[in-house]
Amino acid sequence: MAMPEAVRWGPGRRSVRIIDQRALPGALAELDLRTVDEACAAIRTLAVRGAPAIGIAAAMAFALAMGEHAPAPAETRAARARAIAGALRDTRPTAVNLGWALDRMLAVAADPRLAGDALRDALAREATAILDEDRAMCRRIGEHALTLFPVDARVATHCNAGALATGGIGTALAAVYLAAERGDRVRVFVDETRPLLQGSRLTAWELQQAGVDAVVIADSAAASVMRRGDVDLCIVGADRIAANGDVANKVGTYALAVAARHHGIPFYVAAPSSSFDPATPTGAGIVIEQRAADEIRRGFGSLTAPPAIPVYNPAFDVTPADLITAIVSDRGVHRPPFEFTAS
Amino acid sequence: MAMPEAVRWGPGRRSVRIIDQRALPGALAELDLRTVDEACAAIRTLAVRGAPAIGIAAAMAFALAMGEHAPAPAETRAARARAIAGALRDTRPTAVNLGWALDRMLAVAADPRLAGDALRDALAREATAILDEDRAMCRRIGEHALTLFPVDARVATHCNAGALATGGIGTALAAVYLAAERGDRVRVFVDETRPLLQGSRLTAWELQQAGVDAVVIADSAAASVMRRGDVDLCIVGADRIAANGDVANKVGTYALAVAARHHGIPFYVAAPSSSFDPATPTGAGIVIEQRAADEIRRGFGSLTAPPAIPVYNPAFDVTPADLITAIVSDRGVHRPPFEFTAS
Repeated sequence: MAMPEAVRWGPGRRSVRIIDQRALPGALAELDLRTVDEACAAIRTLAVRGAPAIGIAAAMAFALAMGEHAPAPAETRAARARAIAGALRDTRPTAVNLGWALDRMLAVAADPRLAGDALRDALAREATAILDEDRAMCRRIGEHALTLFPVDARVATHCNAGALATGGIGTALAAVYLAAERGDRVRVFVDETRPLLQGSRLTAWELQQAGVDAVVIADSAAASVMRRGDVDLCIVGADRIAANGDVANKVGTYALAVAARHHGIPFYVAAPSSSFDPATPTGAGIVIEQRAADEIRRGFGSLTAPPAIPVYNPAFDVTPADLITAIVSDRGVHRPPFEFTAS
Repeated sequence: MAMPEAVRWGPGRRSVRIIDQRALPGALAELDLRTVDEACAAIRTLAVRGAPAIGIAAAMAFALAMGEHAPAPAETRAARARAIAGALRDTRPTAVNLGWALDRMLAVAADPRLAGDALRDALAREATAILDEDRAMCRRIGEHALTLFPVDARVATHCNAGALATGGIGTALAAVYLAAERGDRVRVFVDETRPLLQGSRLTAWELQQAGVDAVVIADSAAASVMRRGDVDLCIVGADRIAANGDVANKVGTYALAVAARHHGIPFYVAAPSSSFDPATPTGAGIVIEQRAADEIRRGFGSLTAPPAIPVYNPAFDVTPADLITAIVSDRGVHRPPFEFTAS
C-alpha cells in the first residue's frame, strides 16, 4: 500500500520536508521548510495540517531553529526558545498536539546539562522521537479501532485523519488501511468537507493511492447515505479531546455525529494520546479557530457568494461526549463515561 | 424591497425572460429563451431553477412553441404538443410542478374548440395565469408561514426557495420578506448548499438585495449554529410532497431536518399546492435526480477531488414526514399526520 509521508526530515536533516497539501489532488509537491517563518506559514496556510502532523512539523522546525542557537549562552538560548515556540504555537489555536510537541521540545532546550552539539543532537532526537512515536501510535490506534470494524465495513468519515494528517498511517483511517491489509473490501464514504475540502482533496486522494474503495459525497448528503442503510460506522479524528470526552474536530463533525445518533450508527473518534487535553474539563473550554470569510465566499478562487455577505466560518466544532460511542487511542478503546486524566 | 423576477414574459411576449442564475452572484444577467431547445437547456443547466419557476418557464416555453403550430391541423398539433411537453418534462425528474404546469398547458392545447389565434391566445393566457397564481400563492404561503414566526425570528434555510425559485416572493423565504416588511429584525442563516451553492450564490444574494440580515455558513456548520442556540426555526422549500407528507427537496434538507429534531427546533416546509403530489403515496416513490460527478469533483471550476474518484451526487433527498413540524402551503398550515389528497 502506497502511503504518503506528510512530514519527515529533508536531506541531511537540514529542513522539514512536507507534502504541500494545498496542491493536492492536482499535484504531489514537496516543500522544504528551513526557517521558523517558513514553518509558521506552512502551518497557517494548511500546507501541512492535521493535529499530529502539525505537532511533528513544529517540533522539527523548533529543533532546526534552536540548533542554530545551540552555541549561544544559556540566557540567550532560553529567550530564543520561548520566541520560537511562541511563534509556532500561535499559528493555530485548536489542536492540542502543537502545544504538546513544543512543550517536549522546550523541556529539552531547557535542560541545563545540554549545550552546543549535544543540545543540537538532543533536539533533533526529540523531534525524531515525536515522529516515530506518532507512527507507532497510528498503527496501535488502527489495531484497536479494527476491533470495532465489522468485516467489509462501510465507513463514513469527515475531513482528513489519514496518513496526510500524521507521521504514519493516520488516526481515523488507520483501521481502514489495516482492514484493507487483511483483505477486507472496506468502503469509505468521504465527506468532501467544506470549506477547504480536506475530504475530497486529501482523504479521497490517499485512499485512492492505497487502492481503498472511496466515494466522495457532499457533506450534507451523509445523512441520506445513512438513511439508505449504507453506513456501518463513522470514524473521525480529533484536534483536541477534553477530559470529559468532548471532542473538537473539523466543523461538520458534530453534524455527522448527530446524524449517526439519529440512525443508530456507532460514532467513533480516533486520536493519539497527544490529542487528549486533561487540563480542559469540557468542550466549552476549547478555543475554536475562526477562519477567513473568503474561504466560504470565494470557493477556490470563484465568487460563490455576494462579496460583502457576512459569513460564520468556524474551523472546528465540538461534538459532546454523549454522541460518541467510543474514543480509540494508542492506549485502547475508551468507552463512556469518559474521564481522561493526566498520565 | 427589491425583488428579482426570476421568470416573466420578454418584450412583445416573444420570449421567456429569465434571470440567468448561473451568473449570480457575480452578475445579474437576463436571458431570453425563444425555443423549446433553449428552454430545455436553461432548465437542465439550472439557468432557471426552483420547482415553481421551472413550472412557469416550461409553461411559457410551451405556449410560445405551440403558438407557432396553432394554424396546423389538429393531429399535427397534438403530436407537436406531446413532443414539446415531453422534451420539457424530461429535463428534470424530481420537481412535480414541471409536470403539473405542462399538464395544464396540454389541456389547453387539446381543447377541440381552440385553433389558430384563439389557441395561441389561450396558451399565453394559461401560462400567464400559472405565473400570476404562483405570485399570489407565494404571498399567501408567506402570510400563513408568518404565523409560525416569533418576532425577530432567527431562521435557518437550505438551498434557495426565494424569489429566484418562483414567480413571486418565494416559498420558504416569503415569510422572511413579510417579517422584514412588518419591521422585524429577522436574521437568516443560509446554508451555502453544496454542490451548486444555491444558498450562498442565490439566497444570500436575494436577501442582501432586500436588505435582510443574512449569514452564510458551510452546510455542515448548521448543526453547530443550532447547538449555540442561535436558530428559532428552519424553513425550506420542496420539489415534491408525497401524499403522506414526505418531502423531496435539495440534498441536505434531510440532514438539516435531523439536526433540527436533535435540537428541538421546529422544521417547516413551504410550498405551493402545485408541489403536492397526492398520486405518490410516500417519499419512497419519488425519483431522485442523480447529477454529474464533476459538480463535486470540480467544484467552482477547480479540481477539488481526484479526477477519477467515484462520487455519489443526488440532487435531492427525502425528508420523512415525521421530521416535519408543519407544511405551509397557500391553503394554510398543515400539521401532522399529513394526508394530502387530490383536490
